Amino acid sequence: MTLPALIALDWGTTSLRAYLLGSDGVVLDTRTSSAGIMNLPAGGFDQAFEDTCGVWLDAHAPLPAQLPVIAAGMVGSAQGWVEAPYVETPAGADELVAGIVTVKTARGVTVHVAPGVLEKGTLPNVMRGEETQIFGALFGEPALGGSAGKSGGALIGLPGTHAKWAFVTDERIERFYTFMTGETFSALRDHTILGRTMHPSATHDEPAFLRGVDTARDAGQAGLLATIFSTRTLGLTGQLSAEQQPDYLSGLLIGHELRGLNEVLARQQSSLAGRTLRLIGNDALCKRYRAALVRFGCHDAPTVAHATERGLYRIAALAGLIAAPVRAA
Amino acid sequence: MTLPALIALDWGTTSLRAYLLGSDGVVLDTRTSSAGIMNLPAGGFDQAFEDTCGVWLDAHAPLPAQLPVIAAGMVGSAQGWVEAPYVETPAGADELVAGIVTVKTARGVTVHVAPGVLEKGTLPNVMRGEETQIFGALFGEPALGGSAGKSGGALIGLPGTHAKWAFVTDERIERFYTFMTGETFSALRDHTILGRTMHPSATHDEPAFLRGVDTARDAGQAGLLATIFSTRTLGLTGQLSAEQQPDYLSGLLIGHELRGLNEVLARQQSSLAGRTLRLIGNDALCKRYRAALVRFGCHDAPTVAHATERGLYRIAALAGLIAAPVRAA
Repeated sequence: MTLPALIALDWGTTSLRAYLLGSDGVVLDTRTSSAGIMNLPAGGFDQAFEDTCGVWLDAHAPLPAQLPVIAAGMVGSAQGWVEAPYVETPAGADELVAGIVTVKTARGVTVHVAPGVLEKGTLPNVMRGEETQIFGALFGEPALGGSAGKSGGALIGLPGTHAKWAFVTDERIERFYTFMTGETFSALRDHTILGRTMHPSATHDEPAFLRGVDTARDAGQAGLLATIFSTRTLGLTGQLSAEQQPDYLSGLLIGHELRGLNEVLARQQSSLAGRTLRLIGNDALCKRYRAALVRFGCHDAPTVAHATERGLYRIAALAGLIAAPVRAA
Repeated sequence: MTLPALIALDWGTTSLRAYLLGSDGVVLDTRTSSAGIMNLPAGGFDQAFEDTCGVWLDAHAPLPAQLPVIAAGMVGSAQGWVEAPYVETPAGADELVAGIVTVKTARGVTVHVAPGVLEKGTLPNVMRGEETQIFGALFGEPALGGSAGKSGGALIGLPGTHAKWAFVTDERIERFYTFMTGETFSALRDHTILGRTMHPSATHDEPAFLRGVDTARDAGQAGLLATIFSTRTLGLTGQLSAEQQPDYLSGLLIGHELRGLNEVLARQQSSLAGRTLRLIGNDALCKRYRAALVRFGCHDAPTVAHATERGLYRIAALAGLIAAPVRAA
């Protein structure tokens, strides 16, 4: 039986997921709470931590043999428990470890908070939490690390409210893009005229979704601001039912995201077509992206499982918080 | 002194503007009401019409010498007073006249409602009201009508909640695009994370606005979903103040609209650079577009004044509602 060796926290804006891990990285227990950093209980971070992890700490040996704690995500932002300033691209796991900042809990436990990653430039980009998932994916599949010789390195997509696409070369995050796809979809559906003719549907309408993807791909040259209006006009002209409109709009937006990504790839003489990449995220959303990627000629985009806890484990190991192999075999 | 000869109504979703015109088209009086078709008083269309135009009708000779009434805009939609089905592109003033539908008011006055225009296709487009403004602009400046020989015809932009860009050839609306720029701006500002770091500013920040336009033009290849996130990250990295962020985002969106329009033009071997076009809309917004157009090399984009009332007057004249010259000299 594996003994607990690490508490790993994925602490974002709207949720806190805690993992109790063994020294070999196996997940012994998981606890999830809605106490994201924008939704903390009275008592703040400390109380949320106690509510979620107290039972594990109580069951374990007391100080000084306390379980080490690693955390990543918005908990390290300026609005977080303690600010772990961004490390800049190109950023590898070693840079993340060097950027760890600690905070002591009321109980006296030291929480190690990993930093996010910043890419400077005309369009600066930031991530907090995704970098840990990316290193978790690389841990499980080192070949993904991407050599500089390959066009732009390995490509990893993290669909979501703010989707990220990261280029990884020599196991370092070289650069990345943020697409506000999920949040823009919600804003358009709930707060523009497009929502007024929509009916929610319990089932996913794949043809409507793919029609949106194809429209963005083939007729999207005027840009998103122009194509989204077709959600309404296809309805007005009897070509898209009220129930189909949400999935069509979702397809349009994801299609525009992939069209944009393809433009970025084109500038480095590459393309989504025929490319191998990895997705990290919830299954339903990754499935949606996989279907959209096929329309861009990309047929090899599996989802990486357990990226979050693997990434946290790996960073903790590299930081010396646990005795463990720091590189995958 | 010119006698009243026509009541002309620009009746949209959120407002009703009524013009009392002379037989030569001169504006004798104007009345504005918030009784758009989504904001009608008890008593509905009839009451809104009476509230706005009753005083003019009372002052005029009774039936059968009643003042003729022409209307355009959402009043002719399926949610309007009477539905005037869309006429299809290519659509000239004659097609609009042929599509007029009438409704009789409680007072016994006949209101002539002009139809909107529909362009079929993968991305269908519709307009209601803008077609009348476009014909008003052509009435004042017939050379604008655009001969087929010129690349794609004349180009007329109507900035707004749903911005329209119409290509006009031989005085007919050949095709057009709808960009949901204004409404998307509001949805992003008021209902996404981008608004959280913004402070409203009483003054327009031209440098911030133009920075957004330039970013969309020069670094917009990944698309709107990617560039908008820079509103936040430029703030996070101390490069854009909270007060600058609204104008920067506005510049980004208008920049993406013009970038998209430029892509459309590129496919017909044309470009915004060096092009002559016309704008129709409120002065502040047209000024903003003009500044953005300069960044795309377009230095000749004056605003056409009085397009709405001129368009209504012209259609009424063509329909025989008033004795007037139907073609400009």
